[in-house]
Amino acid sequence: MKSAEIVSVGEELLAGMIADTNAQFLGGILPELGILHRRRQTVGDDLPAIVSALNLALSRSDVVFTIGGLGPTEDDLTRLAIAEVMGVGLETDAAAIERLQALFRSRKIAWTERQARQAQKPTGAFFVENPNGTAPGLICPVRGKFIIALPGPRGEFQPMINGPVREFLSENIVGGAIASKVLRTCGIGEGLLERELGDLIDSKNPTIAPYAGLGEVKLRIVATAESQQSADALLLQFETLVRDKVGGHIYGEGSCELESAVLALLQSRDQTLGVCESMTGGGLAQRLTATPGASAAFVGGLVAYQLSTKTTLAGITDTSAPVSAEMAIKLAEAAREKLGSTYGVGITGNAGPTSDVGDKPVGLVYVAMSGPDGTTVEEHQFRGIREDIRRRATQVALLMLWRSVK
Amino acid sequence: MKSAEIVSVGEELLAGMIADTNAQFLGGILPELGILHRRRQTVGDDLPAIVSALNLALSRSDVVFTIGGLGPTEDDLTRLAIAEVMGVGLETDAAAIERLQALFRSRKIAWTERQARQAQKPTGAFFVENPNGTAPGLICPVRGKFIIALPGPRGEFQPMINGPVREFLSENIVGGAIASKVLRTCGIGEGLLERELGDLIDSKNPTIAPYAGLGEVKLRIVATAESQQSADALLLQFETLVRDKVGGHIYGEGSCELESAVLALLQSRDQTLGVCESMTGGGLAQRLTATPGASAAFVGGLVAYQLSTKTTLAGITDTSAPVSAEMAIKLAEAAREKLGSTYGVGITGNAGPTSDVGDKPVGLVYVAMSGPDGTTVEEHQFRGIREDIRRRATQVALLMLWRSVK
Repeated sequence: MKSAEIVSVGEELLAGMIADTNAQFLGGILPELGILHRRRQTVGDDLPAIVSALNLALSRSDVVFTIGGLGPTEDDLTRLAIAEVMGVGLETDAAAIERLQALFRSRKIAWTERQARQAQKPTGAFFVENPNGTAPGLICPVRGKFIIALPGPRGEFQPMINGPVREFLSENIVGGAIASKVLRTCGIGEGLLERELGDLIDSKNPTIAPYAGLGEVKLRIVATAESQQSADALLLQFETLVRDKVGGHIYGEGSCELESAVLALLQSRDQTLGVCESMTGGGLAQRLTATPGASAAFVGGLVAYQLSTKTTLAGITDTSAPVSAEMAIKLAEAAREKLGSTYGVGITGNAGPTSDVGDKPVGLVYVAMSGPDGTTVEEHQFRGIREDIRRRATQVALLMLWRSVK
Repeated sequence: MKSAEIVSVGEELLAGMIADTNAQFLGGILPELGILHRRRQTVGDDLPAIVSALNLALSRSDVVFTIGGLGPTEDDLTRLAIAEVMGVGLETDAAAIERLQALFRSRKIAWTERQARQAQKPTGAFFVENPNGTAPGLICPVRGKFIIALPGPRGEFQPMINGPVREFLSENIVGGAIASKVLRTCGIGEGLLERELGDLIDSKNPTIAPYAGLGEVKLRIVATAESQQSADALLLQFETLVRDKVGGHIYGEGSCELESAVLALLQSRDQTLGVCESMTGGGLAQRLTATPGASAAFVGGLVAYQLSTKTTLAGITDTSAPVSAEMAIKLAEAAREKLGSTYGVGITGNAGPTSDVGDKPVGLVYVAMSGPDGTTVEEHQFRGIREDIRRRATQVALLMLWRSVK
């Protein structure tokens, strides 16, 4: 099995200005391609550090990805570092210059000479097209291995991974036949899920590994075999066993989020959803509408944040207990009524950091769901920071919906 | 100047199941403590990999942080790896066992023997209290340096960093006197900001470095001196020069987000805000309410997502041009009217990925703000993925508010 290592480049990563969502994205793709991913390095815009990270990575991995440092400024050093590691110079590609200049003309941006750096490549490397930006990627053969260099903006990075890089890897890097799949579960903890899986959890081929997140557990299955057909068959067979044991908790596969699963279920039943949020302040609506095409099932929402808004927007006259099961129920029913939807969800609680809602403890959350079969409400006491408590509350709402609609 | 390196441990990081927000958080803290942060390594739950990452980190950095791998399961190997690197064994601490058992009793969770692993420490190490979880952290003296091991759940990690770890570092690791500050700007690109800063950008002490994000640029200033007093004075003096040049773009400092700055401004003027979102689907309300105490200025919001909801919720009768300046204006005015707020914001557009809103291109966004001085609207054409386009739209709204209220 071939192995890959990621070298993320950029001061903004070390300085904590951004999270490394590119490495996260690529990390999620590699197992699908049957490529082992065991290590990642993060360095700044620092030539010796990039060079030594690349040399270390090449010493132990078959393919090395660099992310970032391909732009036109003097801080963009990845190209130079790769050339040094390859022991070659940088050459300017005339066709790449023309493409860049045409792009600048079409975007009506003045061309400056430093932009030409993006048309450079180490001798022996070849370009990876970047339809969404100026800096092309690079595939660089070195020591019988490959360095694949990609730009940092995720709107450029993700399509390049999903397109030409994926194609290159499946043709050039993957050795054995591998089949892989992520099953996504909710409403059950990692420990209990492992217990329900029983002996399956110890299987050597396929393997199954649980990854716990906030309010959900992902199960990754990886099967290896002599031929792709056998690997696919092995995976399918094992997946059936897994679904027999824990199928009731599986809401989707791969990159499918719980909100997308809920929306798809609603749409397939010709049902709709409206929400009325207090504590989560639009977070549930935001998650739902992150799904393209959400409007087929998601009608809209009310953010009844201030106490008085619960009356003016949601028509709730008695607001004496803003953090209570009763309030969650009233919010859910108001959502359903005001938005004319099949289901209505209401969320209230205290997300902290201080207990400013009367005497209610931080982390106390009430989520109610109103639908054709009446209204139900759940009380939860969460731990964690404000952001986690709010996220968990939206997860509870989606879980209640999923269980009810599926 | 002392240097630090982070070793993040966990299969879930390599597999892309989560972003490494802990390393991001710590990366943001280290410069404030005057500690150089030049490298990060990420490894799985793999003893040899953790050991070799620690040895490499110790060979080039003064303090090494590990994040994750301190839990009670067999996959939690960080403690063992540190003991191996230190060349010592693991010992169980009786007081730590008692504390753990008391915690389990108070949470009414059954005690299992494997939990006792969390009361183990390498001989010579000492514990860092974890008030929000079961696994304490560890400070481990080794080769005249330190390994500081912290648990992965961010609700445990962040308070430990902000409390005991910060205290330990400022007493034991920081050598010279350093003063550091992040100034947050918006409404101006990195290139233009650098031009406005002029010679300041080349200053050697203090240094100033820009970090561009989605719709904002952070400026980090770091001053070093013989004494803390001199470093503070140097920073202050330089900050004044920076503010003279680009002060009009600075909305806050440190971890202050634009939404918090806007809310604070509104509150100080006794003004309020309501929003009516189409394309961003609750994203603006969600950002605003991420700020503790938001309800002092943020009244609430409407998520008018489906076309019909623009009529039923927002009272807009003519919905023939859902993605238009006119619609954004109507949404903003509806927000102000329905929520009785000083300011109302309306957002509409096409976030993609496909151009499903008639013939409007992906990334076309209209943001309107209605207030005591009338209504203004901006048109933007953004590039990027759906998530980025939606985020940028909320950023535009906050920027319009900030400029108007400040």
